[in-house]
Amino acid sequence: MKRYLVLNGPNLNMLGVREPGIYGSDTLADIERRLRELARKLGAELAFFQSNSEGELIDAIHAAYGTKDGILINPGAYTHYSIAIRDALSAVGLPVVEVHLSNIHKREEFRHVSMIAPVAVGQICGFGPHSYELGLRALHHHVTGRDSE
Amino acid sequence: MKRYLVLNGPNLNMLGVREPGIYGSDTLADIERRLRELARKLGAELAFFQSNSEGELIDAIHAAYGTKDGILINPGAYTHYSIAIRDALSAVGLPVVEVHLSNIHKREEFRHVSMIAPVAVGQICGFGPHSYELGLRALHHHVTGRDSE
Amino acid sequence: MKRYLVLNGPNLNMLGVREPGIYGSDTLADIERRLRELARKLGAELAFFQSNSEGELIDAIHAAYGTKDGILINPGAYTHYSIAIRDALSAVGLPVVEVHLSNIHKREEFRHVSMIAPVAVGQICGFGPHSYELGLRALHHHVTGRDSE
Amino acid sequence: MKRYLVLNGPNLNMLGVREPGIYGSDTLADIERRLRELARKLGAELAFFQSNSEGELIDAIHAAYGTKDGILINPGAYTHYSIAIRDALSAVGLPVVEVHLSNIHKREEFRHVSMIAPVAVGQICGFGPHSYELGLRALHHHVTGRDSE
Amino acid sequence: MKRYLVLNGPNLNMLGVREPGIYGSDTLADIERRLRELARKLGAELAFFQSNSEGELIDAIHAAYGTKDGILINPGAYTHYSIAIRDALSAVGLPVVEVHLSNIHKREEFRHVSMIAPVAVGQICGFGPHSYELGLRALHHHVTGRDSE
Amino acid sequence: MKRYLVLNGPNLNMLGVREPGIYGSDTLADIERRLRELARKLGAELAFFQSNSEGELIDAIHAAYGTKDGILINPGAYTHYSIAIRDALSAVGLPVVEVHLSNIHKREEFRHVSMIAPVAVGQICGFGPHSYELGLRALHHHVTGRDSE
Amino acid sequence: MKRYLVLNGPNLNMLGVREPGIYGSDTLADIERRLRELARKLGAELAFFQSNSEGELIDAIHAAYGTKDGILINPGAYTHYSIAIRDALSAVGLPVVEVHLSNIHKREEFRHVSMIAPVAVGQICGFGPHSYELGLRALHHHVTGRDSE
Amino acid sequence: MKRYLVLNGPNLNMLGVREPGIYGSDTLADIERRLRELARKLGAELAFFQSNSEGELIDAIHAAYGTKDGILINPGAYTHYSIAIRDALSAVGLPVVEVHLSNIHKREEFRHVSMIAPVAVGQICGFGPHSYELGLRALHHHVTGRDSE
Amino acid sequence: MKRYLVLNGPNLNMLGVREPGIYGSDTLADIERRLRELARKLGAELAFFQSNSEGELIDAIHAAYGTKDGILINPGAYTHYSIAIRDALSAVGLPVVEVHLSNIHKREEFRHVSMIAPVAVGQICGFGPHSYELGLRALHHHVTGRDSE
Amino acid sequence: MKRYLVLNGPNLNMLGVREPGIYGSDTLADIERRLRELARKLGAELAFFQSNSEGELIDAIHAAYGTKDGILINPGAYTHYSIAIRDALSAVGLPVVEVHLSNIHKREEFRHVSMIAPVAVGQICGFGPHSYELGLRALHHHVTGRDSE
Amino acid sequence: MKRYLVLNGPNLNMLGVREPGIYGSDTLADIERRLRELARKLGAELAFFQSNSEGELIDAIHAAYGTKDGILINPGAYTHYSIAIRDALSAVGLPVVEVHLSNIHKREEFRHVSMIAPVAVGQICGFGPHSYELGLRALHHHVTGRDSE
Amino acid sequence: MKRYLVLNGPNLNMLGVREPGIYGSDTLADIERRLRELARKLGAELAFFQSNSEGELIDAIHAAYGTKDGILINPGAYTHYSIAIRDALSAVGLPVVEVHLSNIHKREEFRHVSMIAPVAVGQICGFGPHSYELGLRALHHHVTGRDSE
Repeated sequence: MKRYLVLNGPNLNMLGVREPGIYGSDTLADIERRLRELARKLGAELAFFQSNSEGELIDAIHAAYGTKDGILINPGAYTHYSIAIRDALSAVGLPVVEVHLSNIHKREEFRHVSMIAPVAVGQICGFGPHSYELGLRALHHHVTGRDSE
Repeated sequence: MKRYLVLNGPNLNMLGVREPGIYGSDTLADIERRLRELARKLGAELAFFQSNSEGELIDAIHAAYGTKDGILINPGAYTHYSIAIRDALSAVGLPVVEVHLSNIHKREEFRHVSMIAPVAVGQICGFGPHSYELGLRALHHHVTGRDSE
Repeated sequence: MKRYLVLNGPNLNMLGVREPGIYGSDTLADIERRLRELARKLGAELAFFQSNSEGELIDAIHAAYGTKDGILINPGAYTHYSIAIRDALSAVGLPVVEVHLSNIHKREEFRHVSMIAPVAVGQICGFGPHSYELGLRALHHHVTGRDSE
Repeated sequence: MKRYLVLNGPNLNMLGVREPGIYGSDTLADIERRLRELARKLGAELAFFQSNSEGELIDAIHAAYGTKDGILINPGAYTHYSIAIRDALSAVGLPVVEVHLSNIHKREEFRHVSMIAPVAVGQICGFGPHSYELGLRALHHHVTGRDSE
Repeated sequence: MKRYLVLNGPNLNMLGVREPGIYGSDTLADIERRLRELARKLGAELAFFQSNSEGELIDAIHAAYGTKDGILINPGAYTHYSIAIRDALSAVGLPVVEVHLSNIHKREEFRHVSMIAPVAVGQICGFGPHSYELGLRALHHHVTGRDSE
Repeated sequence: MKRYLVLNGPNLNMLGVREPGIYGSDTLADIERRLRELARKLGAELAFFQSNSEGELIDAIHAAYGTKDGILINPGAYTHYSIAIRDALSAVGLPVVEVHLSNIHKREEFRHVSMIAPVAVGQICGFGPHSYELGLRALHHHVTGRDSE
Repeated sequence: MKRYLVLNGPNLNMLGVREPGIYGSDTLADIERRLRELARKLGAELAFFQSNSEGELIDAIHAAYGTKDGILINPGAYTHYSIAIRDALSAVGLPVVEVHLSNIHKREEFRHVSMIAPVAVGQICGFGPHSYELGLRALHHHVTGRDSE
Repeated sequence: MKRYLVLNGPNLNMLGVREPGIYGSDTLADIERRLRELARKLGAELAFFQSNSEGELIDAIHAAYGTKDGILINPGAYTHYSIAIRDALSAVGLPVVEVHLSNIHKREEFRHVSMIAPVAVGQICGFGPHSYELGLRALHHHVTGRDSE
Repeated sequence: MKRYLVLNGPNLNMLGVREPGIYGSDTLADIERRLRELARKLGAELAFFQSNSEGELIDAIHAAYGTKDGILINPGAYTHYSIAIRDALSAVGLPVVEVHLSNIHKREEFRHVSMIAPVAVGQICGFGPHSYELGLRALHHHVTGRDSE
Repeated sequence: MKRYLVLNGPNLNMLGVREPGIYGSDTLADIERRLRELARKLGAELAFFQSNSEGELIDAIHAAYGTKDGILINPGAYTHYSIAIRDALSAVGLPVVEVHLSNIHKREEFRHVSMIAPVAVGQICGFGPHSYELGLRALHHHVTGRDSE
Repeated sequence: MKRYLVLNGPNLNMLGVREPGIYGSDTLADIERRLRELARKLGAELAFFQSNSEGELIDAIHAAYGTKDGILINPGAYTHYSIAIRDALSAVGLPVVEVHLSNIHKREEFRHVSMIAPVAVGQICGFGPHSYELGLRALHHHVTGRDSE
Repeated sequence: MKRYLVLNGPNLNMLGVREPGIYGSDTLADIERRLRELARKLGAELAFFQSNSEGELIDAIHAAYGTKDGILINPGAYTHYSIAIRDALSAVGLPVVEVHLSNIHKREEFRHVSMIAPVAVGQICGFGPHSYELGLRALHHHVTGRDSE
């Protein structure tokens, strides 16, 4: 039974409220519910954490050290400048999968660069809430070496 | 009776202490007192919040959703790199007026760019504490469509 | 009784005609009428000048030397490249407030830079015709050290 | 029964030979076999095409117009400069999912930019051959609005 | 008896865990112990604070105002983008010495720039935990004008 | 009967004198004569204006508002920096065709960029005086939707 | 009787299908028909070739050497990066006129640059299918020194 | 007897008023007087013209064609962006010497570039009003091939 | 007996025709003949392939895998942008020597960069057809560790 | 007994004369005296060399090969462009500590970059002459693994 | 009687040999002779020094400290990168006039920038050997406040 | 009998010592011996000079004027910034061949640019000591127009 931390960065608590034209009408709770279902099928256990604070996200990453088998992260706006979150992910050395709801390559130029991607296994973006499910499959496959069904 | 959130970012609690050559000797309390007076005249109600933490500023912006009619913000140093605060302002969809004490165009080049301005109604800078009063008038005029006296 | 020059640059004579989606339907005459009213309340006297010619704008700035107490300027497109107007404002040494109808930070990248702002007291943009009224208050407050009501 | 084109760009025919340190030892045939299995489960039909020629890839994209429901593409090195492939994808107007074996953000700087991503639904990179399976799920979910298992 | 604040930024609590190839196996506690010893010899008193939160680091800097004689800071990843910490250091006006464990000039290009250095007395990097001891000597020498032995 | 304004910017009055190696030996009068002939055939009426002054060119553009059906412009050197002329063309909202005698892409790099082109229907360059005739055909075709013979 | 090669690059075979909002509803066959008519009037003979392959376009350019009097080319997306097509045009030394359906200066920034223009006589863009007719007139005028009617 | 045009650009009419810390207390009249004296000694005749208008400066340059033997120009702020003045100087083909009162390399970065210098014989800057006298000597020497005493 | 592939990219089939001022009057056949002579002396066997198509060049590189001992390549214009050819060379892992007829550092700036050089043993440019002979010696020396005579 | 070379680059012989506002009034001899004292305490032997010539500095670095245990270098202005000194330090492979009197991050932008730092153990700047003493401690600690008292 | 050092940098000993198309046929000795004559008239005494070595030029600048009243320098190629010569000139604090034979603004882009100009009184370029004479007049005028005849 | 100067720049005297992983174990003497052998075969006479000093290298280039028929140069680190050496080579007007031991395109980005190459016949890099032999052949072939055997 693998244990993963699902980490959500700033403003993702506003999902469903925030610019539905870009992000859709699902809330973070909807996403978590679907992820738990998928995790159950895959045989994995999920812990969820969301914060608007860079420091709290870093604390959560540190806390995953020795207690989790991988991290699924949507770093929100911190994606583009938080060297500190990047260093935290580097420090704990766990496999990381980065996901985004929107296709960041279609938006403002400053969103095309990710500080996080170079320390992640891979990146998935543009599939709305489904990005998370793909990300969980990708992480689990990477960790177990086994295909999700 | 309109309700506005007046949001101050990092180091603005040090106003009056910090580099008076650039920012003058007024404290944040002085500014708040003058803003309340003006608000009374305009028929508006103000709530004040200052924090040095990016995350707490984002939480405060989220909390304004559904409870305030607009936001007057001096994002301090976060002006220049906080995509997360920008996204928070975008998410709640309230009218935003951005103010600065100093004329940011006269200072270091990295202060010439604002991540916040593109999601604000407008920007006012360079008039010291008076920038806030101009900003409140601008916000109120935008929200009510009525001229301040 | 303070005397201010209100200077408008290229294409502002077309206001109300020109791209109302961006600039609104007020004409320059409407703005002048409202500014005169405000000036009367503040106890100030205004002179207006608009030109599409960089040279004539510079001539007008020179003429303000020794006859005016400050300049309220919307340099229009010259904002972004007229070093000559910047030098003229520097030369006469009067307090300058720069205003823009639109939020220049939301438009093309070449409109994000102002050659004028570094020689102005401050800059106000994004509030449509109301930007001028805020600008007059800001200028008067700067010159007299007294609050507008 | 949905029909998808799986398109592979230059050098992907060398998979299993080429720099296994970066790309692993699976061949393109291995990937195709696994994709067919997954497609069968999802109820989809796949056509495969690989070419080292930019022009042939464009021809194949044009041929998908009116005959396929979506395109799963690994554009290989053309990702980074082929405006012509981008225009072809734009022209046919089918949903596109872009996949990469390696995490392009960990490699040379010229590989961080994708000309294709702005015309795709989304992008998946870094999961080796598994990127393709995630990509097929993502595409099918986008096209059908239904979750893969 | 001089009093100094020793401030450590994000991820430095993970020292000894985090990438020992880059940072060595000493923990932050080891460094603190050695610094206290040196402080005793120099006749100085140290207070230590570590946080992963930008806002808490700024609060700590403000709190040093009027209570400390100088600040020894390793801003971690915030070095490269926190204008807010730079402004906080500017605001309190205390002498600051910036230290880094690793030689930031040997690492990724985005680590070559320091937002903090222009408001510090000086910068020391590359000597592992010994950077802190050199930093304390440098700070004490600057504050007292006296040579450490 | 369509009416067009043919506008020539700085130094074009020197045509035939100025660097014949680049611009040929035709004068502006020669060009005007040929254009009138073509206009007669097309069933159009032309007005000509040349000025070295940016302001006068803007005035002429404003004057075309409501009196002309389109503008054929060779902005000369102002092509590369006059945001004010661009804004004037935008303001009057008439169809604009931009022409150049020389192939600007073969000359100094600062001549490769046009501030005017993004507000024009199209651009024609490199065919010497014949560029104007092509430009008139292009403008007339755009305005009438009819082919020139 | 002059002989010209009319060369069309990638995706132009999709004309009429591809993004009609940008390129209109005419097909390449419609354009060829109109060009033949115009050629007949001008006393010229046209050969047409379209390919999505950079190599085939280069082969066609080489084949024009010694058999054609000029080339009318719409290089499509290759405009912006094909140094190889540029070199081919240089190599054969025939007069070249470059045309574009859309105004490339109004589109993405990477479309503002042409690798081809510096080796062409001139460039025409923005007039839809009419760009080709203008281009043929321009080429014929350049080759014969005679005005088209 | 050689005849030279001495041309002064924007704001130079304010000399002696404008920022004496940078430009000194001499007026333009003082400079003209000294230049006339020097011209008399050299056996040359000077005509003076100053304007704040780019268009008028261009007109004056055109008028020098066929009537003057050289141009001594201080283009003021137009130095840095007036391609139109550069083209005018190119067009008339007279020898040009460019002078500046201040050392433009010590000032803001945008003043380090001259659009004019590449079409001038040479450039002299930094010697205050004496720059003009050196410039006249340089021009006269260039035109006559004879040393000024 | 070593076997080498001599690969020539776009437009090199036009050698002797194309811009003799830059490339000389030798044809590709002349070069091949001289290379065969040299190969005979060195004890090596050459295969020649030229194509204007990027895809065919990649196919030829793949075909060299397991059948050749090295590649001598003049990638022509593809040198500067073909990441796909670079990846193909990387994939087959054979020693590569890159040659150019002209000194690419004396030509347009976009020719100063080579995408191929970082995956080659070395680069030789500027010696006309002799560059190939030097390249063959360099390749043979690298492969055999023996000096050419 | 460790032996170190203390190397000083251009203009450091002028110390005490040169811009005391930036560098203080100590001479190089003062610094050497203090360094010798410290070296005596640490149990190390110092050799000093200063030159204004890049070549002589390189010669001195080469001479240290096999005779010294480390190099303390203030490369002066060569810091920012001497790749040759960097290569010399690389070549001899001795531990290097780079010091600067002034805080190079507070000065002109071209002084923010060090060509030397990437081949040094670490860098110390901003502490005036005390930078050298800190540098010697740092070097000795690095070489011996032992703390200076 | 004022004393000036006339300093010539690398390759100026080759004057008259080196690229006469750019630099003319005068030798350095010719220039020195003419300068001595002018110096005699002005009442000044000149010392000449030329070196190809950056270090020797710096030594000569240092030697001028306390013995000369000003420096006339043609730094040759070192103009564009020698921060060390710039620092030497800064260090001795003497008035400096920078001269160039050719108009550096008409040559390669890397010659448009001068590291020396910001520490000089002014710069003169483009007048061939006459640049030196103008430079001497400029220096003498600056030092004595008296006009050269 | 042709005479060539073989010039080696900074640090090449350390060859065999310096970073053998990059440069191999041959010494400069080994290279000279092999070059002499080859020269004997070719019927050429070589003179060797190595210096770490930019000035001495320039002196040596000047001395070659009128006494040598060509220069074979490995400018070492000066390749990337010595405009002075470039100018010296230009000045003497002899044919120059530039060689490098390592493939400079595989190393740090600042080594990808050569200031020397634009004034050389050609450049050869990446073949270790063999680069010199290839360079000598290339130079001799260029000078004599005859093939080396």
